[in-house]
Amino acid sequence: MRIITVSREFGSGGRELGKRIADNMGIAYFDREIITAVSEGSQLDESYVEAVLDRGLFRDIPVTFGRSIANMSNITHTTQRIVAEQHRIITEMASRGDCVIVGRNADLLLHELNPLKLFVYADMTSKINRCRSRAPEGEHLSDRDMAKMIKRIDKARARTHTFFSDIPWGAKEGYHLCVNTTNTDIKALAKILSDYAEHWFSGVES
Amino acid sequence: MRIITVSREFGSGGRELGKRIADNMGIAYFDREIITAVSEGSQLDESYVEAVLDRGLFRDIPVTFGRSIANMSNITHTTQRIVAEQHRIITEMASRGDCVIVGRNADLLLHELNPLKLFVYADMTSKINRCRSRAPEGEHLSDRDMAKMIKRIDKARARTHTFFSDIPWGAKEGYHLCVNTTNTDIKALAKILSDYAEHWFSGVES
Repeated sequence: MRIITVSREFGSGGRELGKRIADNMGIAYFDREIITAVSEGSQLDESYVEAVLDRGLFRDIPVTFGRSIANMSNITHTTQRIVAEQHRIITEMASRGDCVIVGRNADLLLHELNPLKLFVYADMTSKINRCRSRAPEGEHLSDRDMAKMIKRIDKARARTHTFFSDIPWGAKEGYHLCVNTTNTDIKALAKILSDYAEHWFSGVES
Repeated sequence: MRIITVSREFGSGGRELGKRIADNMGIAYFDREIITAVSEGSQLDESYVEAVLDRGLFRDIPVTFGRSIANMSNITHTTQRIVAEQHRIITEMASRGDCVIVGRNADLLLHELNPLKLFVYADMTSKINRCRSRAPEGEHLSDRDMAKMIKRIDKARARTHTFFSDIPWGAKEGYHLCVNTTNTDIKALAKILSDYAEHWFSGVES
């Protein structure tokens, strides 16, 4: 089974890279689909599921949604249900066959299936430029505010990661390959990494 | 010009990887040759040159070799000469044509030639095992002492790095690609990375 997990800094182009690798290799690609499936499976609103899974899970949500201890314990229970449902869905998707999964701590959740674990990063200027070209509606933000937003999102990713692993999010030790996308053409890079992955699965591990 | 710099943790197999990449691509390989050339160029003993370049340069040597302020300033002058000679030789070697250079902060010294910068790492168990298989004479060392030695060597590498860059040695931000060699077959990995490099130089940068 060929499973590739793509963890990435916000704005590094990791999502596009993952999608292109999947297309090049002719295998499935999962990203947003996971949130949708968790929402369906748990019968909870998609934006609520996303907030729970993306905002560092357990701590932030009760403050926003809960008013009493009773409510908080309900919400903690819901959160646990969402996290468990996500685990079930990611495992189920991976069991269907070869795929690329972007984000969602899939590198940790699927560890036993021995995925090729990629981490994608870039320098801040490059990430800001990529964000601007992708979302022109964010153009009113100054570079400084854009950098703040990027850091905030990555901080949440780092936090959810700590629930599953002792190795910090983004520390190279947790991945097989870390790829810097600063000043690189994602399409060309995806081509190389697809070849890399094909070779990897045909036997690099000793 | 295709220049590949390989920075690596001690015991990660980075040297073998670099040599194999050079062989696969049919390009020059420099590593030990640099020390020899600096020794010849500066007319200083090879082991002295190596000590200066590998032990964190400026601070440690005077303590060992110098007895007075006068001596210390002589030695500092010699150290500067060695460092400058190394820079000159690495630049000269790179100017001859395509090559792989392992270590020696070549990633920083040759920055303007736009090399493909690799960093090679592995987990401690893997590094200890590789050291044992390479140097059976070190077999009397316990795993703990072996780990201490590995950390000490890498600490010196990290220290010499700080003289040339604000980005810490081994921080992924300083490299194009960081490669984890834990449980991987170096020969197979070298094959993939040679392909990666060939593609890289035929146009990934935007």
